Amino acid sequence: MGKLTGFLIFSSLFTGLVVAADWNILKNQKNKNNGVGDGLKKYCESWRINVEVNNIRGFDVVPQECVQYIQKYMTSSQYKADSEKALEEVTFYLSSCCTLEGDGKDAWIFDVDDTLLSTIPYFKTHGFGGEKINATSLEAWMRESKAPALEHTLKLFHEIKNRGLKIFLISSRRENLRSSSVDNLIKVGYHGWTGLILRGLEDEFMEVQKYKSKARHRLVDEGYLIWGIIGDQWSSFEGLPIAKRTFKLPNSMYYN
Amino acid sequence: MGKLTGFLIFSSLFTGLVVAADWNILKNQKNKNNGVGDGLKKYCESWRINVEVNNIRGFDVVPQECVQYIQKYMTSSQYKADSEKALEEVTFYLSSCCTLEGDGKDAWIFDVDDTLLSTIPYFKTHGFGGEKINATSLEAWMRESKAPALEHTLKLFHEIKNRGLKIFLISSRRENLRSSSVDNLIKVGYHGWTGLILRGLEDEFMEVQKYKSKARHRLVDEGYLIWGIIGDQWSSFEGLPIAKRTFKLPNSMYYN
Repeated sequence: MGKLTGFLIFSSLFTGLVVAADWNILKNQKNKNNGVGDGLKKYCESWRINVEVNNIRGFDVVPQECVQYIQKYMTSSQYKADSEKALEEVTFYLSSCCTLEGDGKDAWIFDVDDTLLSTIPYFKTHGFGGEKINATSLEAWMRESKAPALEHTLKLFHEIKNRGLKIFLISSRRENLRSSSVDNLIKVGYHGWTGLILRGLEDEFMEVQKYKSKARHRLVDEGYLIWGIIGDQWSSFEGLPIAKRTFKLPNSMYYN
Repeated sequence: MGKLTGFLIFSSLFTGLVVAADWNILKNQKNKNNGVGDGLKKYCESWRINVEVNNIRGFDVVPQECVQYIQKYMTSSQYKADSEKALEEVTFYLSSCCTLEGDGKDAWIFDVDDTLLSTIPYFKTHGFGGEKINATSLEAWMRESKAPALEHTLKLFHEIKNRGLKIFLISSRRENLRSSSVDNLIKVGYHGWTGLILRGLEDEFMEVQKYKSKARHRLVDEGYLIWGIIGDQWSSFEGLPIAKRTFKLPNSMYYN
Protein backbone atom coordinates (compact mmCIF):
# COMPACT_ATOMS: atom_id res chain seq x y z
CA MET A 1 0.00 0.00 0.00
CA GLY A 2 2.91 2.31 0.88
CA LYS A 3 4.42 1.56 -2.51
CA LEU A 4 1.11 2.31 -4.25
CA THR A 5 0.76 5.60 -2.39
CA GLY A 6 4.33 6.51 -3.25
CA PHE A 7 3.72 5.63 -6.91
CA LEU A 8 0.53 7.63 -6.96
CA ILE A 9 2.18 10.67 -5.38
CA PHE A 10 5.01 10.42 -7.92
CA SER A 11 2.66 9.78 -10.78
CA SER A 12 0.42 12.62 -9.73
CA LEU A 13 3.32 15.05 -9.42
CA PHE A 14 4.74 13.89 -12.76
CA THR A 15 1.39 14.27 -14.49
CA GLY A 16 1.06 17.68 -12.89
CA LEU A 17 4.40 18.69 -14.40
CA VAL A 18 3.32 17.44 -17.81
CA VAL A 19 0.12 19.47 -17.49
CA ALA A 20 2.09 22.56 -16.54
CA ALA A 21 4.38 22.01 -19.52
CA ASP A 22 1.36 21.62 -21.76
CA TRP A 23 -0.24 24.81 -20.58
CA ASN A 24 2.98 26.59 -21.43
CA ILE A 25 2.96 25.10 -24.90
CA LEU A 26 -0.67 26.11 -25.28
CA LYS A 27 0.12 29.62 -24.09
CA ASN A 28 2.99 29.81 -26.57
CA GLN A 29 0.69 28.55 -29.32
CA LYS A 30 -1.68 31.38 -28.40
CA ASN A 31 1.18 33.87 -28.43
CA LYS A 32 2.25 32.52 -31.80
CA ASN A 33 -1.19 33.53 -33.07
CA ASN A 34 0.17 37.07 -32.74
CA GLY A 35 -1.25 37.39 -29.27
CA VAL A 36 -4.68 38.07 -30.72
CA GLY A 37 -7.84 36.00 -30.84
CA ASP A 38 -8.66 33.80 -33.82
CA GLY A 39 -11.44 36.05 -35.11
CA LEU A 40 -9.32 39.18 -34.88
CA LYS A 41 -6.35 37.40 -36.43
CA LYS A 42 -8.53 36.31 -39.35
CA TYR A 43 -9.83 39.85 -39.80
CA CYS A 44 -6.36 41.41 -39.68
CA GLU A 45 -4.93 38.81 -42.06
CA SER A 46 -7.74 39.64 -44.51
CA TRP A 47 -6.99 43.31 -44.12
CA ARG A 48 -3.31 42.70 -44.80
CA ILE A 49 -3.75 40.44 -47.84
CA ASN A 50 -6.22 42.93 -49.33
CA VAL A 51 -3.66 45.70 -48.88
CA GLU A 52 -1.02 43.53 -50.53
CA VAL A 53 -3.13 42.77 -53.62
CA ASN A 54 -4.11 46.46 -53.91
CA ASN A 55 -7.79 46.03 -53.09
CA ILE A 56 -7.46 48.35 -50.08
CA ARG A 57 -5.95 51.65 -51.17
CA GLY A 58 -5.13 55.02 -49.71
CA PHE A 59 -5.31 54.09 -46.04
CA ASP A 60 -3.92 56.66 -43.62
CA VAL A 61 -3.39 54.33 -40.70
CA VAL A 62 -3.51 50.61 -39.99
CA PRO A 63 -6.85 49.82 -38.29
CA GLN A 64 -6.21 50.22 -34.57
CA GLU A 65 -7.23 46.65 -33.74
CA CYS A 66 -4.70 45.28 -36.27
CA VAL A 67 -1.62 47.25 -35.21
CA GLN A 68 -0.36 44.41 -33.01
CA TYR A 69 -0.92 41.89 -35.80
CA ILE A 70 0.90 44.06 -38.37
CA GLN A 71 3.76 44.66 -35.95
CA LYS A 72 4.11 40.90 -35.45
CA TYR A 73 4.00 40.25 -39.20
CA MET A 74 6.45 42.98 -40.18
CA THR A 75 8.99 41.72 -37.63
CA SER A 76 8.36 38.01 -38.33
CA SER A 77 10.24 35.38 -40.25
CA GLN A 78 7.14 35.12 -42.47
CA TYR A 79 7.69 38.72 -43.67
CA LYS A 80 11.31 37.81 -44.45
CA ALA A 81 10.25 34.61 -46.22
CA ASP A 82 7.62 36.47 -48.27
CA SER A 83 10.18 39.07 -49.35
CA GLU A 84 12.79 36.45 -50.18
CA LYS A 85 10.32 34.48 -52.28
CA ALA A 86 9.48 37.63 -54.24
CA LEU A 87 13.18 38.26 -54.86
CA GLU A 88 13.77 34.64 -55.85
CA GLU A 89 11.18 35.19 -58.57
CA VAL A 90 13.21 38.16 -59.81
CA THR A 91 16.29 35.95 -60.13
CA PHE A 92 14.21 33.34 -61.91
CA TYR A 93 12.79 35.97 -64.28
CA LEU A 94 16.25 37.38 -65.03
CA SER A 95 17.69 33.97 -65.78
CA SER A 96 14.97 33.06 -68.24
CA CYS A 97 13.44 36.15 -69.69
CA CYS A 98 15.76 38.54 -71.24
CA THR A 99 18.24 38.98 -73.94
CA LEU A 100 19.57 42.33 -72.87
CA GLU A 101 20.10 44.92 -75.56
CA GLY A 102 23.62 45.47 -74.24
CA ASP A 103 23.63 49.04 -75.49
CA GLY A 104 23.93 50.50 -72.00
CA LYS A 105 20.23 51.24 -72.00
CA ASP A 106 18.93 48.15 -70.19
CA ALA A 107 17.40 49.48 -66.98
CA TRP A 108 16.07 48.23 -63.67
CA ILE A 109 14.16 50.31 -61.11
CA PHE A 110 14.07 49.98 -57.32
CA ASP A 111 12.03 51.79 -54.67
CA VAL A 112 14.14 52.93 -51.73
CA ASP A 113 12.17 52.67 -48.47
CA ASP A 114 11.17 49.13 -47.52
CA THR A 115 12.70 47.86 -50.73
CA LEU A 116 16.41 48.72 -50.38
CA LEU A 117 16.30 50.18 -46.86
CA SER A 118 14.06 49.17 -44.00
CA THR A 119 11.98 51.74 -42.12
CA ILE A 120 10.94 49.15 -39.56
CA PRO A 121 13.28 50.56 -36.87
CA TYR A 122 11.46 53.89 -37.24
CA PHE A 123 7.99 52.40 -37.12
CA LYS A 124 8.95 50.27 -34.12
CA THR A 125 8.92 53.46 -32.09
CA HIS A 126 6.11 55.14 -34.05
CA GLY A 127 3.11 52.88 -33.75
CA PHE A 128 3.77 50.47 -36.64
CA GLY A 129 1.37 52.15 -39.02
CA GLY A 130 -1.20 52.77 -36.28
CA GLU A 131 -0.28 56.47 -36.10
CA LYS A 132 -0.69 58.81 -39.04
CA ILE A 133 2.75 59.46 -40.52
CA ASN A 134 4.42 62.57 -39.20
CA ALA A 135 6.58 63.66 -42.12
CA THR A 136 8.80 65.89 -39.97
CA SER A 137 9.64 63.09 -37.56
CA LEU A 138 10.11 60.51 -40.33
CA GLU A 139 12.40 62.83 -42.30
CA ALA A 140 14.41 63.59 -39.17
CA TRP A 141 14.99 59.86 -38.80
CA MET A 142 15.92 59.52 -42.48
CA ARG A 143 18.42 62.32 -42.04
CA GLU A 144 20.26 60.16 -39.49
CA SER A 145 21.10 57.70 -42.32
CA LYS A 146 20.80 54.68 -40.11
CA ALA A 147 18.18 52.58 -41.90
CA PRO A 148 19.42 49.02 -42.31
CA ALA A 149 19.49 47.26 -45.69
CA LEU A 150 17.00 44.58 -46.58
CA GLU A 151 19.65 41.89 -46.87
CA HIS A 152 18.14 39.94 -49.76
CA THR A 153 17.50 43.04 -51.82
CA LEU A 154 21.09 44.12 -51.29
CA LYS A 155 22.33 40.84 -52.72
CA LEU A 156 19.97 41.07 -55.67
CA PHE A 157 20.87 44.71 -56.32
CA HIS A 158 24.45 43.67 -57.03
CA GLU A 159 23.38 40.63 -59.05
CA ILE A 160 21.26 42.84 -61.31
CA LYS A 161 24.03 45.41 -61.65
CA ASN A 162 26.54 42.68 -62.49
CA ARG A 163 24.32 41.49 -65.32
CA GLY A 164 24.95 44.84 -66.97
CA LEU A 165 21.65 46.53 -66.15
CA LYS A 166 21.64 50.20 -65.23
CA ILE A 167 19.99 50.75 -61.89
CA PHE A 168 17.67 53.63 -61.12
CA LEU A 169 16.30 54.34 -57.68
CA ILE A 170 13.00 56.19 -57.81
CA SER A 171 11.93 57.30 -54.36
CA SER A 172 9.20 59.47 -52.94
CA ARG A 173 11.77 60.92 -50.54
CA ARG A 174 12.26 64.63 -51.05
CA GLU A 175 15.27 66.14 -52.79
CA ASN A 176 16.52 67.71 -49.55
CA LEU A 177 17.19 64.19 -48.25
CA ARG A 178 19.63 63.43 -51.06
CA SER A 179 22.89 63.48 -49.14
CA SER A 180 21.50 61.58 -46.13
CA SER A 181 19.98 59.01 -48.49
CA VAL A 182 23.21 58.54 -50.41
CA ASP A 183 25.15 58.23 -47.14
CA ASN A 184 22.71 55.66 -45.83
CA LEU A 185 22.68 53.60 -49.03
CA ILE A 186 26.47 53.55 -49.34
CA LYS A 187 26.97 52.77 -45.66
CA VAL A 188 24.87 49.58 -45.84
CA GLY A 189 26.42 48.36 -49.10
CA TYR A 190 24.56 49.83 -52.08
CA HIS A 191 26.72 51.47 -54.71
CA GLY A 192 26.99 51.78 -58.45
CA TRP A 193 23.50 52.96 -59.31
CA THR A 194 23.06 55.12 -62.40
CA GLY A 195 20.38 57.47 -61.06
CA LEU A 196 18.77 58.36 -57.75
CA ILE A 197 15.55 60.19 -58.49
CA LEU A 198 14.00 62.12 -55.60
CA ARG A 199 11.01 64.42 -55.42
CA GLY A 200 11.88 67.94 -56.42
CA LEU A 201 9.84 70.96 -55.36
CA GLU A 202 7.70 70.71 -58.50
CA ASP A 203 6.78 67.09 -57.70
CA GLU A 204 5.87 67.53 -54.06
CA PHE A 205 2.19 68.06 -54.59
CA MET A 206 1.92 65.46 -57.31
CA GLU A 207 0.45 62.04 -56.45
CA VAL A 208 3.25 59.54 -55.90
CA GLN A 209 2.01 57.36 -58.75
CA LYS A 210 2.08 60.30 -61.20
CA TYR A 211 5.51 61.42 -60.04
CA LYS A 212 6.93 57.90 -60.51
CA SER A 213 5.29 57.53 -63.94
CA LYS A 214 6.84 60.83 -64.96
CA ALA A 215 10.26 59.63 -63.81
CA ARG A 216 9.91 56.42 -65.87
CA HIS A 217 8.75 58.47 -68.82
CA ARG A 218 11.95 60.46 -68.71
CA LEU A 219 14.01 57.27 -68.66
CA VAL A 220 12.17 55.88 -71.67
CA ASP A 221 12.60 59.19 -73.48
CA GLU A 222 16.33 58.86 -72.83
CA GLY A 223 16.25 55.50 -74.59
CA TYR A 224 16.15 53.16 -71.58
CA LEU A 225 14.31 49.85 -71.70
CA ILE A 226 12.77 49.10 -68.29
CA TRP A 227 13.11 45.38 -67.66
CA GLY A 228 11.64 45.43 -64.19
CA ILE A 229 10.68 47.30 -61.06
CA ILE A 230 10.96 46.08 -57.47
CA GLY A 231 8.89 48.02 -54.98
CA ASP A 232 6.72 47.77 -51.91
CA GLN A 233 4.04 50.16 -53.21
CA TRP A 234 1.66 49.65 -56.12
CA SER A 235 2.13 53.32 -57.00
CA SER A 236 5.61 52.33 -58.19
CA PHE A 237 4.17 50.09 -60.93
CA GLU A 238 0.99 51.76 -62.11
CA GLY A 239 0.53 54.19 -64.95
CA LEU A 240 2.49 54.51 -68.17
CA PRO A 241 5.08 53.58 -69.25
CA ILE A 242 4.84 50.11 -67.76
CA ALA A 243 7.86 47.92 -67.06
CA LYS A 244 8.15 44.45 -68.58
CA ARG A 245 7.69 42.96 -65.10
CA THR A 246 7.02 44.26 -61.62
CA PHE A 247 7.69 42.62 -58.27
CA LYS A 248 5.77 43.60 -55.16
CA LEU A 249 7.47 43.36 -51.78
CA PRO A 250 5.25 43.18 -48.70
CA ASN A 251 4.49 46.32 -46.69
CA SER A 252 1.27 46.87 -44.81
CA MET A 253 2.47 49.70 -42.55
CA TYR A 254 1.70 52.59 -44.87
CA TYR A 255 0.38 53.47 -48.33
CA ASN A 256 1.58 56.08 -50.73
CA MET B 1 -4.24 6.79 4.58
CA GLY B 2 -7.12 5.12 2.75
CA LYS B 3 -8.55 8.59 2.17
CA LEU B 4 -5.20 9.89 0.93
CA THR B 5 -4.80 6.92 -1.43
CA GLY B 6 -8.34 7.48 -2.70
CA PHE B 7 -7.65 11.20 -3.18
CA LEU B 8 -4.40 10.45 -4.99
CA ILE B 9 -6.05 7.88 -7.26
CA PHE B 10 -8.81 10.37 -8.05
CA SER B 11 -6.39 13.24 -8.47
CA SER B 12 -4.12 11.15 -10.66
CA LEU B 13 -7.00 10.02 -12.87
CA PHE B 14 -8.34 13.57 -13.08
CA THR B 15 -4.94 14.98 -14.00
CA GLY B 16 -4.58 12.20 -16.54
CA LEU B 17 -7.84 13.26 -18.13
CA VAL B 18 -6.67 16.88 -18.26
CA VAL B 19 -3.45 15.74 -19.90
CA ALA B 20 -5.38 13.72 -22.46
CA ALA B 21 -7.58 16.73 -23.17
CA ASP B 22 -4.49 18.91 -23.56
CA TRP B 23 -2.86 16.53 -25.98
CA ASN B 24 -6.00 16.68 -28.08
CA ILE B 25 -5.90 20.48 -28.05
CA LEU B 26 -2.25 20.36 -29.01
CA LYS B 27 -3.00 17.89 -31.78
CA ASN B 28 -5.76 20.16 -33.04
CA GLN B 29 -3.42 23.13 -32.89
CA LYS B 30 -1.02 21.16 -35.02
CA ASN B 31 -3.80 20.23 -37.43
CA LYS B 32 -4.82 23.88 -37.54
CA ASN B 33 -1.32 24.61 -38.86
CA ASN B 34 -2.63 22.88 -41.99
CA GLY B 35 -1.21 19.57 -40.88
CA VAL B 36 2.21 20.68 -42.07
CA GLY B 37 5.39 21.67 -40.24
CA ASP B 38 6.17 25.29 -39.46
CA GLY B 39 8.93 25.57 -42.07
CA LEU B 40 6.79 24.08 -44.80
CA LYS B 41 3.80 26.21 -43.79
CA LYS B 42 5.96 29.32 -44.00
CA TYR B 43 7.23 28.31 -47.44
CA CYS B 44 3.75 27.54 -48.77
CA GLU B 45 2.32 30.76 -47.33
CA SER B 46 5.09 32.67 -49.12
CA TRP B 47 4.31 30.81 -52.31
CA ARG B 48 0.63 31.66 -52.01
CA ILE B 49 1.07 35.37 -51.18
CA ASN B 50 3.50 35.72 -54.08
CA VAL B 51 0.92 34.16 -56.41
CA GLU B 52 -1.72 36.55 -55.06
CA VAL B 53 0.37 39.69 -55.66
CA ASN B 54 1.32 38.46 -59.15
CA ASN B 55 5.01 37.90 -58.46
CA ILE B 56 4.69 34.21 -59.36
CA ARG B 57 3.14 33.85 -62.79
CA GLY B 58 2.32 31.14 -65.25
CA PHE B 59 2.55 28.18 -62.90
CA ASP B 60 1.16 24.91 -64.27
CA VAL B 61 0.68 23.19 -60.95
CA VAL B 62 0.83 24.04 -57.27
CA PRO B 63 4.20 22.83 -55.88
CA GLN B 64 3.60 19.26 -54.72
CA GLU B 65 4.65 19.97 -51.13
CA CYS B 66 2.10 22.82 -50.88
CA VAL B 67 -0.97 21.03 -52.22
CA GLN B 68 -2.20 20.17 -48.73
CA TYR B 69 -1.65 23.74 -47.56
CA ILE B 70 -3.51 25.20 -50.56
CA GLN B 71 -6.35 22.72 -50.10
CA LYS B 72 -6.68 23.80 -46.46
CA TYR B 73 -6.59 27.48 -47.39
CA MET B 74 -9.07 27.25 -50.27
CA THR B 75 -11.57 25.43 -48.03
CA SER B 76 -10.92 27.57 -44.95
CA SER B 77 -12.81 30.39 -43.30
CA GLN B 78 -9.73 32.55 -44.00
CA TYR B 79 -10.33 32.17 -47.77
CA LYS B 80 -13.95 33.23 -47.22
CA ALA B 81 -12.88 36.16 -45.02
CA ASP B 82 -10.28 37.30 -47.59
CA SER B 83 -12.88 37.21 -50.38
CA GLU B 84 -15.47 39.01 -48.29
CA LYS B 85 -13.02 41.76 -47.38
CA ALA B 86 -12.22 42.26 -51.08
CA LEU B 87 -15.94 42.54 -51.86
CA GLU B 88 -16.51 44.92 -48.94
CA GLU B 89 -13.95 47.20 -50.58
CA VAL B 90 -16.03 47.10 -53.78
CA THR B 91 -19.09 48.28 -51.85
CA PHE B 92 -17.00 50.98 -50.22
CA TYR B 93 -15.64 52.08 -53.61
CA LEU B 94 -19.11 52.17 -55.16
CA SER B 95 -20.54 54.23 -52.33
CA SER B 96 -17.86 56.88 -52.52
CA CYS B 97 -16.35 56.95 -55.95
CA CYS B 98 -18.66 57.37 -58.76
CA THR B 99 -21.18 59.65 -60.25
CA LEU B 100 -22.51 57.28 -62.85
CA GLU B 101 -23.08 58.66 -66.31
CA GLY B 102 -26.60 57.23 -66.21
CA ASP B 103 -26.65 56.92 -69.99
CA GLY B 104 -26.95 53.13 -69.90
CA LYS B 105 -23.24 52.86 -70.62
CA ASP B 106 -21.89 52.46 -67.07
CA ALA B 107 -20.36 49.00 -67.01
CA TRP B 108 -18.97 46.51 -64.52
CA ILE B 109 -17.06 43.33 -65.40
CA PHE B 110 -16.91 40.00 -63.56
CA ASP B 111 -14.87 36.87 -64.16
CA VAL B 112 -16.96 33.69 -63.97
CA ASP B 113 -14.94 30.84 -62.42
CA ASP B 114 -13.91 31.42 -58.82
CA THR B 115 -15.46 34.85 -58.95
CA LEU B 116 -19.17 34.16 -59.55
CA LEU B 117 -19.04 30.35 -59.45
CA SER B 118 -16.76 28.16 -57.39
CA THR B 119 -14.69 25.42 -58.99
CA ILE B 120 -13.59 24.14 -55.59
CA PRO B 121 -15.92 21.09 -55.76
CA TYR B 122 -14.13 20.08 -58.99
CA PHE B 123 -10.64 20.61 -57.60
CA LYS B 124 -11.56 18.73 -54.44
CA THR B 125 -11.53 15.58 -56.53
CA HIS B 126 -8.74 16.71 -58.87
CA GLY B 127 -5.74 17.38 -56.71
CA PHE B 128 -6.42 20.99 -55.68
CA GLY B 129 -4.06 22.48 -58.22
CA GLY B 130 -1.46 19.76 -57.71
CA GLU B 131 -2.40 18.07 -61.00
CA LYS B 132 -2.02 19.81 -64.34
CA ILE B 133 -5.48 20.89 -65.49
CA ASN B 134 -7.16 18.39 -67.78
CA ALA B 135 -9.37 20.60 -69.95
CA THR B 136 -11.58 17.71 -71.07
CA SER B 137 -12.38 16.64 -67.55
CA LEU B 138 -12.85 20.22 -66.29
CA GLU B 139 -15.18 21.07 -69.19
CA ALA B 140 -17.17 17.86 -68.60
CA TRP B 141 -17.70 19.04 -65.02
CA MET B 142 -18.66 22.55 -66.20
CA ARG B 143 -21.19 20.99 -68.55
CA GLU B 144 -23.00 19.52 -65.53
CA SER B 145 -23.83 23.10 -64.42
CA LYS B 146 -23.51 22.31 -60.76
CA ALA B 147 -20.89 24.83 -59.61
CA PRO B 148 -22.10 26.65 -56.50
CA ALA B 149 -22.21 30.45 -56.28
CA LEU B 150 -19.69 32.38 -54.21
CA GLU B 151 -22.35 33.72 -51.86
CA HIS B 152 -20.85 37.16 -51.26
CA THR B 153 -20.23 37.79 -54.94
CA LEU B 154 -23.85 36.84 -55.66
CA LYS B 155 -25.10 39.48 -53.24
CA LEU B 156 -22.74 42.10 -54.68
CA PHE B 157 -23.67 41.20 -58.26
CA HIS B 158 -27.26 42.25 -57.56
CA GLU B 159 -26.19 45.33 -55.62
CA ILE B 160 -24.11 46.51 -58.58
CA LYS B 161 -26.89 45.76 -61.04
CA ASN B 162 -29.39 47.62 -58.86
CA ARG B 163 -27.20 50.71 -58.95
CA GLY B 164 -27.87 50.83 -62.69
CA LEU B 165 -24.56 49.42 -63.92
CA LYS B 166 -24.58 47.09 -66.91
CA ILE B 167 -22.89 43.82 -66.05
CA PHE B 168 -20.58 41.97 -68.40
CA LEU B 169 -19.17 38.54 -67.66
CA ILE B 170 -15.89 37.93 -69.46
CA SER B 171 -14.79 34.34 -69.07
CA SER B 172 -12.06 32.16 -70.50
CA ARG B 173 -14.63 29.36 -70.81
CA ARG B 174 -15.12 28.32 -74.40
CA GLU B 175 -18.17 29.27 -76.46
CA ASN B 176 -19.39 25.66 -76.56
CA LEU B 177 -20.03 25.91 -72.81
CA ARG B 178 -22.50 28.77 -73.24
CA SER B 179 -25.73 26.97 -72.45
CA SER B 180 -24.30 25.01 -69.51
CA SER B 181 -22.78 28.22 -68.15
CA VAL B 182 -26.03 30.15 -68.46
CA ASP B 183 -27.95 27.26 -66.81
CA ASN B 184 -25.47 27.14 -63.97
CA LEU B 185 -25.45 30.90 -63.39
CA ILE B 186 -29.25 31.18 -63.43
CA LYS B 187 -29.70 28.12 -61.21
CA VAL B 188 -27.60 29.61 -58.40
CA GLY B 189 -29.18 33.06 -58.59
CA TYR B 190 -27.34 35.20 -61.17
CA HIS B 191 -29.56 36.92 -63.73
CA GLY B 192 -29.87 40.21 -65.50
CA TRP B 193 -26.39 40.54 -66.98
CA THR B 194 -26.00 42.48 -70.21
CA GLY B 195 -23.34 40.32 -71.85
CA LEU B 196 -21.69 36.95 -71.34
CA ILE B 197 -18.49 36.91 -73.36
CA LEU B 198 -16.91 33.48 -73.94
CA ARG B 199 -13.93 32.39 -76.01
CA GLY B 200 -14.84 31.86 -79.62
CA LEU B 201 -12.80 29.68 -81.96
CA GLU B 202 -10.71 32.65 -83.03
CA ASP B 203 -9.76 33.41 -79.41
CA GLU B 204 -8.81 29.92 -78.36
CA PHE B 205 -5.14 30.21 -79.09
CA MET B 206 -4.88 33.75 -77.83
CA GLU B 207 -3.40 34.39 -74.38
CA VAL B 208 -6.17 34.89 -71.82
CA GLN B 209 -4.93 38.39 -71.02
CA LYS B 210 -5.05 39.43 -74.70
CA TYR B 211 -8.48 37.88 -75.19
CA LYS B 212 -9.86 39.73 -72.16
CA SER B 213 -8.27 43.04 -73.24
CA LYS B 214 -9.85 42.61 -76.66
CA ALA B 215 -13.26 42.03 -75.06
CA ARG B 216 -12.90 45.21 -72.97
CA HIS B 217 -11.78 47.09 -76.05
CA ARG B 218 -14.99 46.13 -77.79
CA LEU B 219 -17.03 47.39 -74.83
CA VAL B 220 -15.21 50.72 -74.81
CA ASP B 221 -15.69 51.00 -78.58
CA GLU B 222 -19.42 50.53 -77.97
CA GLY B 223 -19.31 53.51 -75.61
CA TYR B 224 -19.16 51.74 -72.26
CA LEU B 225 -17.31 53.20 -69.30
CA ILE B 226 -15.74 50.39 -67.24
CA TRP B 227 -16.03 51.33 -63.57
CA GLY B 228 -14.54 48.15 -62.22
CA ILE B 229 -13.56 44.52 -62.67
CA ILE B 230 -13.80 41.75 -60.08
CA GLY B 231 -11.71 38.70 -60.88
CA ASP B 232 -9.51 36.01 -59.41
CA GLN B 233 -6.85 36.24 -62.15
CA TRP B 234 -4.49 39.12 -62.91
CA SER B 235 -5.00 38.43 -66.62
CA SER B 236 -8.49 39.91 -66.16
CA PHE B 237 -7.07 43.32 -65.25
CA GLU B 238 -3.92 43.74 -67.27
CA GLY B 239 -3.49 45.34 -70.67
CA LEU B 240 -5.50 48.14 -72.24
CA PRO B 241 -8.08 49.49 -71.81
CA ILE B 242 -7.81 49.56 -68.03
CA ALA B 243 -10.80 49.79 -65.71
CA LYS B 244 -11.09 52.59 -63.16
CA ARG B 245 -10.59 50.02 -60.40
CA THR B 246 -9.89 46.31 -60.16
CA PHE B 247 -10.52 43.92 -57.29
CA LYS B 248 -8.56 40.70 -56.93
CA LEU B 249 -10.22 37.68 -55.32
CA PRO B 250 -7.96 34.95 -53.92
CA ASN B 251 -7.20 31.86 -55.98
CA SER B 252 -3.98 29.92 -55.74
CA MET B 253 -5.17 26.71 -57.41
CA TYR B 254 -4.44 27.66 -61.00
CA TYR B 255 -3.16 30.47 -63.21
CA ASN B 256 -4.41 31.59 -66.57
